[in-house]
Amino acid sequence: MKIAVLGTGMVGRALAARLAELGHAVTIGTRNPDETLARTGDDAFAAWAAANPAVGLAAFTDAASAAELAINATSGGAALEVLALAGQENLTGKVLVDIANPLDLSAGMPPTLFVKDTDSLGEQIQRAHPDALVVKTLNTLNASLMADPAKLGEASTVFVSGNDAAAKATVSGLLAEMGHQDIIDLGDITTARGTEMLLPVWLRLWGALGTPEFNFKIVR
Amino acid sequence: MKIAVLGTGMVGRALAARLAELGHAVTIGTRNPDETLARTGDDAFAAWAAANPAVGLAAFTDAASAAELAINATSGGAALEVLALAGQENLTGKVLVDIANPLDLSAGMPPTLFVKDTDSLGEQIQRAHPDALVVKTLNTLNASLMADPAKLGEASTVFVSGNDAAAKATVSGLLAEMGHQDIIDLGDITTARGTEMLLPVWLRLWGALGTPEFNFKIVR
Repeated sequence: MKIAVLGTGMVGRALAARLAELGHAVTIGTRNPDETLARTGDDAFAAWAAANPAVGLAAFTDAASAAELAINATSGGAALEVLALAGQENLTGKVLVDIANPLDLSAGMPPTLFVKDTDSLGEQIQRAHPDALVVKTLNTLNASLMADPAKLGEASTVFVSGNDAAAKATVSGLLAEMGHQDIIDLGDITTARGTEMLLPVWLRLWGALGTPEFNFKIVR
Repeated sequence: MKIAVLGTGMVGRALAARLAELGHAVTIGTRNPDETLARTGDDAFAAWAAANPAVGLAAFTDAASAAELAINATSGGAALEVLALAGQENLTGKVLVDIANPLDLSAGMPPTLFVKDTDSLGEQIQRAHPDALVVKTLNTLNASLMADPAKLGEASTVFVSGNDAAAKATVSGLLAEMGHQDIIDLGDITTARGTEMLLPVWLRLWGALGTPEFNFKIVR
């Protein structure tokens, strides 16, 4: 499948590398590819790109227009702006996977959520892109486990929320390819409120356990 | 241990019966014992009390004053009022286990939370009773599994939040007696924000799975 991963951060890179490894044609979207490649530092994108030659890099709009499925891997606060740059017309009729969390870091740690309880980032994205098929998923575990949950050595759970059953089936197929064995369909996109509100306890668990390498499993 | 369970509902009954079965001296607290025993209907307290003769019934203030440890098993919205009736002087220096959730059902289903993200019911209770040792726990699973988690056939996780390490150790001991094998200490009482915010996804999972007989397990 032709996949656009919108976002050049750790989460976007982890998913892009994994999906490319699985045989998908993956392009990472960014504001300005030249500027992204010119960045220096320990986690410079150019070095990562050189180690992952199968993954392309393009402007948000080009990545989205060429893709069959797009993944919002931006920080939550940038999501609506980035998706606007990708272009509503480039997302029409396509599956738009939202893996971001609405974290508000403006008041320091721990972060709060800039939308919650009566609305969610997933719903904001669906309203902003009514012709895209938004599926919220993977926002409840860290990047390395999103891409390769088998690392934990025990099956754990991921959730999907969205209004379109076929879109959720497509996304569940990708999740299964990555190794997710327990995928719970929570219902329509309003159920993203629940998974986004998992973040506060996830952050406290990271603190208590001393590692982000854990995941929720729904035992039943 | 002499334990007061404040609240005559399903959650209070399940915990009271289990703790009595384990050999504790349990008294359920209520506003007016005579009125509570006079109620009729399918889930009348009098019938339950007849089947559970080891569990006492007393006014909130009497139950709390006689107890070494008190459990807030009220609905979240009633918690502060009930604890005021129990009496601040009757809770001083005692472990106060808060298992309630701040559910707001005023706008119908699904409920929202009347406090969240920057504060929690657990913190509200601790502020209202500064001399009590508040421990938030058990608010992330249903009553029957709170009391007997072994029913699931697989170990799952419960959380404790509180400012006093000795109080958390006491509560963790009770949890272990009831069969909880994986107890994660999240930190101080502010970490109750995280576990209270689990409720929205818990409610959606109930809908998706068709049963409340499930629990979170933290796989790591």
